[in-house]
Parts: sequence; C-alpha cells; structure tokens
Amino acid sequence: MAVYEKMSAAELVALEKELSKEYESFKAKNLKLDMSRGKPGADQLDITNELLNSVNEQSGYRDETGFDCRNYGVLDGIPECKRLFAEILEVEPKNIIVGGNSSLNMMFDYIAQCMTHGAGAEPWCKQGEIKFLCPAPGYDRHFGILEYFGIEMITVPMKEDGPDMDIIEENVKDPSVKGMFCVPKYSNPEGKTFSDEVVKRIAALKPAAKDFRVMWDNAYCVHHISENHDELLNIFPLCRENNNSDMVIEFTSTSKITFPGAGVAALAASDNNIAMIKKRMSMQTIGYDKLNQLRHARYFKDVNGVNEYMKRHAAILAPKFQAVLDCLENNLGQTGVAKWTKPNGGYFISLDVMDGCAKEVAALCSQAGVNLTPAGATYPYGNDPKDCNIRIAPSYPPVDELKLAAELLCLCVKLVSVRKLIEEN
Amino acid sequence: MAVYEKMSAAELVALEKELSKEYESFKAKNLKLDMSRGKPGADQLDITNELLNSVNEQSGYRDETGFDCRNYGVLDGIPECKRLFAEILEVEPKNIIVGGNSSLNMMFDYIAQCMTHGAGAEPWCKQGEIKFLCPAPGYDRHFGILEYFGIEMITVPMKEDGPDMDIIEENVKDPSVKGMFCVPKYSNPEGKTFSDEVVKRIAALKPAAKDFRVMWDNAYCVHHISENHDELLNIFPLCRENNNSDMVIEFTSTSKITFPGAGVAALAASDNNIAMIKKRMSMQTIGYDKLNQLRHARYFKDVNGVNEYMKRHAAILAPKFQAVLDCLENNLGQTGVAKWTKPNGGYFISLDVMDGCAKEVAALCSQAGVNLTPAGATYPYGNDPKDCNIRIAPSYPPVDELKLAAELLCLCVKLVSVRKLIEEN
Repeated sequence: MAVYEKMSAAELVALEKELSKEYESFKAKNLKLDMSRGKPGADQLDITNELLNSVNEQSGYRDETGFDCRNYGVLDGIPECKRLFAEILEVEPKNIIVGGNSSLNMMFDYIAQCMTHGAGAEPWCKQGEIKFLCPAPGYDRHFGILEYFGIEMITVPMKEDGPDMDIIEENVKDPSVKGMFCVPKYSNPEGKTFSDEVVKRIAALKPAAKDFRVMWDNAYCVHHISENHDELLNIFPLCRENNNSDMVIEFTSTSKITFPGAGVAALAASDNNIAMIKKRMSMQTIGYDKLNQLRHARYFKDVNGVNEYMKRHAAILAPKFQAVLDCLENNLGQTGVAKWTKPNGGYFISLDVMDGCAKEVAALCSQAGVNLTPAGATYPYGNDPKDCNIRIAPSYPPVDELKLAAELLCLCVKLVSVRKLIEEN
Repeated sequence: MAVYEKMSAAELVALEKELSKEYESFKAKNLKLDMSRGKPGADQLDITNELLNSVNEQSGYRDETGFDCRNYGVLDGIPECKRLFAEILEVEPKNIIVGGNSSLNMMFDYIAQCMTHGAGAEPWCKQGEIKFLCPAPGYDRHFGILEYFGIEMITVPMKEDGPDMDIIEENVKDPSVKGMFCVPKYSNPEGKTFSDEVVKRIAALKPAAKDFRVMWDNAYCVHHISENHDELLNIFPLCRENNNSDMVIEFTSTSKITFPGAGVAALAASDNNIAMIKKRMSMQTIGYDKLNQLRHARYFKDVNGVNEYMKRHAAILAPKFQAVLDCLENNLGQTGVAKWTKPNGGYFISLDVMDGCAKEVAALCSQAGVNLTPAGATYPYGNDPKDCNIRIAPSYPPVDELKLAAELLCLCVKLVSVRKLIEEN
C-alpha cells in the first residue's frame, strides 16, 4: 500500500476500479451492522443480571437508615447510593443528588432550570441571545439540548489535551456566553482526557457572566479499557481556590456500568447549586426510584466494587477496540488519508478522514448495511465544518461482526479518498 | 352530645374544661402518628413484592417485540406497558407516553415545556403574566408547580360534582388564563368525582387562549375503596367533538397501585401533543427505565389484572377509611361544628371545621404528636380563605394507631370549636 497522495493519476484510477469491485462484493453480503451509538453489547449486559436480585423479600426493602424504599420520600437519594457516587466523583455525599436513570435528563433539566429560573441571576430566557461554548468534536446530545433551548453554540476546537483554552478564555469575556458542555475524561468521541493544565485553566476562568456554568459530563469516569488509566483532576477543589465554587456541575451515571436502560444517574455540585436544584426537585417529584438506587448500592457496596467490576467490562471492550484499531492500521496506516485516536477508555474511536469526505464515507457504509453515527453529528448543529470526522462506536456488535464492519468502513474511506483525489487531479 | 352552637356560655366553659383535660392526657401518651400524606401503608406495599421477581434470568429481559429492555432505546415506553396504560385510560396506545416513576414529574415537565416552548403558540414565559384555574380544595403539589413557575393561581370553588363551571366558563374568557389543574376522579382531598355534566362542560370550553391546557390528573382512576365505584366520563372523545382535541393532557401512575417509590407513570394526549412532547423527550433522555415497565406489564398483563389487584388494596384501605369515618360520626356527628366527605375511592377524607379553626386544630394535633397535612395546603398559596379545610390521609398508619389519631383529631376539633364559641359569646 502506498501513500495515496503520491500516486499517479493512472494508479489512482486503477485503485478506484479495484476498490469499487471490492465494495460491490461487500454490498452483496447484505450486512446489517450498527456502529452508530455507544451501546453496550448483550455480553456486557449479562454480567449485571445479578444486580436485579439484590433487592428482594429476604434482603428487604429498607435503606441503611431503615427507610422503606418502596414508599414515597427521600428526595435526593438514599444515603448509601449518595455515598457510592460521592466516592466515584470524589466529593462529599452532601454535594450529591441521585436522580432517575438518565444523566442526560439531569443535564437537560439543569439547563431548563437556568432558562426559567436562572443560575443565581436573571433567568436565561429573559437575557436575550445567550451562547454556550462547545468543544468539538463532542457529544451530539449535548448539542441537541442547547439547540432545543435556542442557545447559540460556539464551536471550540479540541486539542490533544482538551479544548483550546485560549479560545475559551477569550470567549468568556462576552457576558452572553453562559456556559460550556464537555466530557472531560475519555471524551466523546475522541477518548481524550483533559490535562491537569486544561482543568486548572477551566477552574480559573473569570467569565464576564456571573451565571456561567460548566456542564462537566463525567460519563466515563471509571470506564477504562486499557491498563493505562487516564487521570483527571478533581475540578471542585480547584474551583474553590479560584472562588468559582458554583461554576461547575458534574454529571455521571451507571448507564455504562450496569444497564443503559435501567441504571442510576447522579450529579455533584456546590452547596449553593445543590440547594437550588433541590428547591426545584421538591416541586418536581416526590423522589426518584429508590429501589433501583438500593439495588445499585447493595450490588457494588463502594467505589472499589465499581472499579473491580469495570475490569469485566474492559475485558469485553478491549478486544473490540483492538479489532477496530488493528483494522484501521492494517488498511489505512500507510495511505495517509486518515488518522484516528487510540483511547485508554470510554466508548468511542474518533476517525478523521480527508476534508470533505466524512459524509460520503458514512453514506457508502450505510448503503452497504453498516450504520455509523451520522457524519457531522459530533459538531454543533450537525455541521462539521471540514466534513472530516467520523465517530466509531465499537461496543455493540460482537467481535466478528465488528471486524466486518470495520473492514467495510476502511474500504469506504479508501474509495471515497481515491475518488476525491482523482477529482482533484 | 349536643349541637355546640345551642349550648349556653356556662355549658361551653364546662365542656372546654373537660376537653382540655382529655387533651392533656392525650399529650401525655407521647404519640407519634402521621396522617399527613397519601402514603400507602407497609401492608399495602407487601402485596406487590412479587412484582420485583417478574423480570429475571428465566423470564428474560426482552419486551414483546424482542427488544432488550436492559439497553438504551424505546423513547415512549415498551409496547406492552403502553397498551396497559391505554386500557386503563381508555385511549389508543399511540396516545400514551410511559415515563419514569413519577406522574408529578411529567406534569412539572409539561408545564416547563409550555413555559419555554409554548403549547402551540408563544412560549408562556414570553406572554407576560399568565394564570391558571385551581379548583380548591385541591392537591398542594399542583399548586406548588404553578407557584414555582410564577403562574398566578385563581381559586375556583369545588361544588358537589366538581368545580364551579360557571366561574370557569367566565374565567376562560381571559386570554391570560392558560389552563387548569384538576383531579377529576376521587379528587384530592375531597374524594369527589366530576359528574358527566361537569366533564362535558370542561370538554366544551371555549377559552380565549388557544394554548389553554387542562392538566387532567387522573391519579385515582382505578382506586376504588367501596363496592360503589364512581364513574368518570372519558374526556377525550368529548374534546374531539368540540374541536378541543389538544386541550387536555391526562396523567396517571402506578404509585398507588404498586410502589410509590418505584412505580411507572404515564400520560395520555392528542396526536399533536404527543408529537410535541416526544420532540422534547428526544432531547431529554434516551428512554425511561424499561425494566420497570416490563415488570409492571408482565405482573398485571392487562387492565383486568389491575382491577382485580385494586380489590386487595381496597380490602386494606376500606377499614381504615371506615375507622376514621366512624370516629368522625361518633365524636362530631351531633356537634354541628364539622362536616366531611365519604368518598368511594382515592386516598383522602376532607374535613371542614368551623371557619377560622383549621390551623389551630392542626397545631393542637401536632403538639400532641399527630401530623396532619398543613392546614391551608389544599388551597393555592397555602391560603385557605376560610381556614376551615383539613385533609385526612388515613392510608399510612395501622388501624389501631389510626383510630387513636382520629380520636385526637376529633378532640382537637371539639376543643378549638368550643374555645371559638366561647370567644364569640
């Protein structure tokens, strides 16, 4: 294999013919594979089935204070579940609120709260045009929340160790910039972890908006897939040092620890923010599902239980990531038309192809039966300005299917790149 | 016992002395009883424990379409759970959305949606002062939601068969009146069911506001405690006849069918409203807890299963209601200082004492160790203009404790009434 850009026009045309033929034979296989979302596979779900038996007539339905979890009450989570999340996020239990099954819902709800009731200042919906900073490529559902509420999104490029802090520091001088969404550890989709330097600079921001909020979506906090664990600084003590205690709200869940459809979500925040969120919650609900909280707390006991458990997920996920990485290396390593990340954790591999090619690659994959996250989805408004980023989610398909899907993806990358080079010649 | 108002001053003073003595001896018992919230008792919760075993490795985790409920996906509820609620609420499954464990949360969220995104018109938060109609006595948490969002509440008196429709028809001529909250069956706290006439008049309303919404909280739709079942007309067909299809959103949950802390909630609405709510949901969550939906659907199978099951709750609740009603009749029946409802279902008995006495009765009860819902809570802003309504929640305490609590309540009503009459003499 050669570097495509150095090939002659004739070589490219010959290669295009060969790749097209290969592609047609892939199509004939009538594949139906999905690498679009960060869904755990059935093998991962199976290791958690026992959790469902951890609350029953023998073990009883009472939390450690004796409260009957079947009944109404306990707004912010049962103590043992708050403690579990406090250990995971390295905060005090009083700074934890345990929610329902979805941290996305808690994030959505916090933005909804800011819209109608503000974040210690005027409601955002009464402040005219407001904006959010969006490190990208990023998580499409963060962008979806902002778009739903009509909050203007400002794309901030991701560097190797996190978002471009120079751009962020410049933008927060604008008082209409009200916040930022980010995934600081094993980021979605690149699997990058913010460096100490980046975390320190975020904690030390001096936004013109006093109601500036960082939505710190720590979805992958314990989700290592390699033995090399990335380390993320705890941002809260740093915020306190900078008199920014109320600036960060952290979110996480067990969606990719236990069950995506029946896990438990939580947030961590300053005393002020906890009080404001609880005030809303006291009008919003009598309490979230405490039996499910009890199941989780009993099953894991503490953060060590969680960490041990995550090794079982890693054992399933690591070969899947490796299969995709091997396929990328073998097929595209010498071509010079693609680069990709090699994350130590999280759920995604981020693939960058030649500018202007990502949408076409996804379209070809789809026509041959392999679904990818829609190209562009990793950018605000679904608009990848260079049309080059593709998010690969290797978790869901079994390894043999995954290999096939990755083969097809590589083939499509090659085919689209070659066609583009021919066009440009 | 005599009618208090006909007693002489001397008789009243003597009675006051006697009642005070009785009250002091009650206080000496150091009671600690709770009749404040509509919480099922532990005996009611126990009958549902088997539900928790209805989803396990043997029975599997897939819904009837084969979808793995442990994983992400299925925004609006698994089919068998949608069908179950559709049968309960007598609508089509396509007009059902199944949520998390709290219908209050779904109501809160719908109002939040109207605030920022409107109900087919301008967002409510952009329409200046807006108002809601509140039949009262009513459910304090409805009023809490409205107060949280700064929506002005207009109290509408409850008559024997529902809210005063003349007042409602007059008020909806004001375009700033955007909706109404109500509990149409076995209402909270009076246990009244809206008559056919009232339901028809609500369905036929011609509000000036095109974005007027009726929050039809059918929390007690299958919650009979007597063999005489109240019947509530299905409002949706009537709305359609009046070109008001989008005016009503109906809510219910299994909180008082299975577990208050771990049930399943649902709403029913027109196609238009369902589409608008789903659009929001698609940004808000990847889906609610489907394993819990599956537990409920498997456990009950259909509405007949639910109806049979509710007889077991009735068998526990009926003696509790009877104990309170007997106590009220025996102690206050001849005094002429109180009247109360005798509901066929729901969770409450509503007690009206002499004007200006409810707060004092609740205070005396509390000082002797029996907690009631705060007097006034059944009215908007916690302000019962006559200070006469007390909500009794007989479900939680065991019968012997309940009898004691009801005895004390009756004693306090007598004592406060007598003192008031002495004062007025």
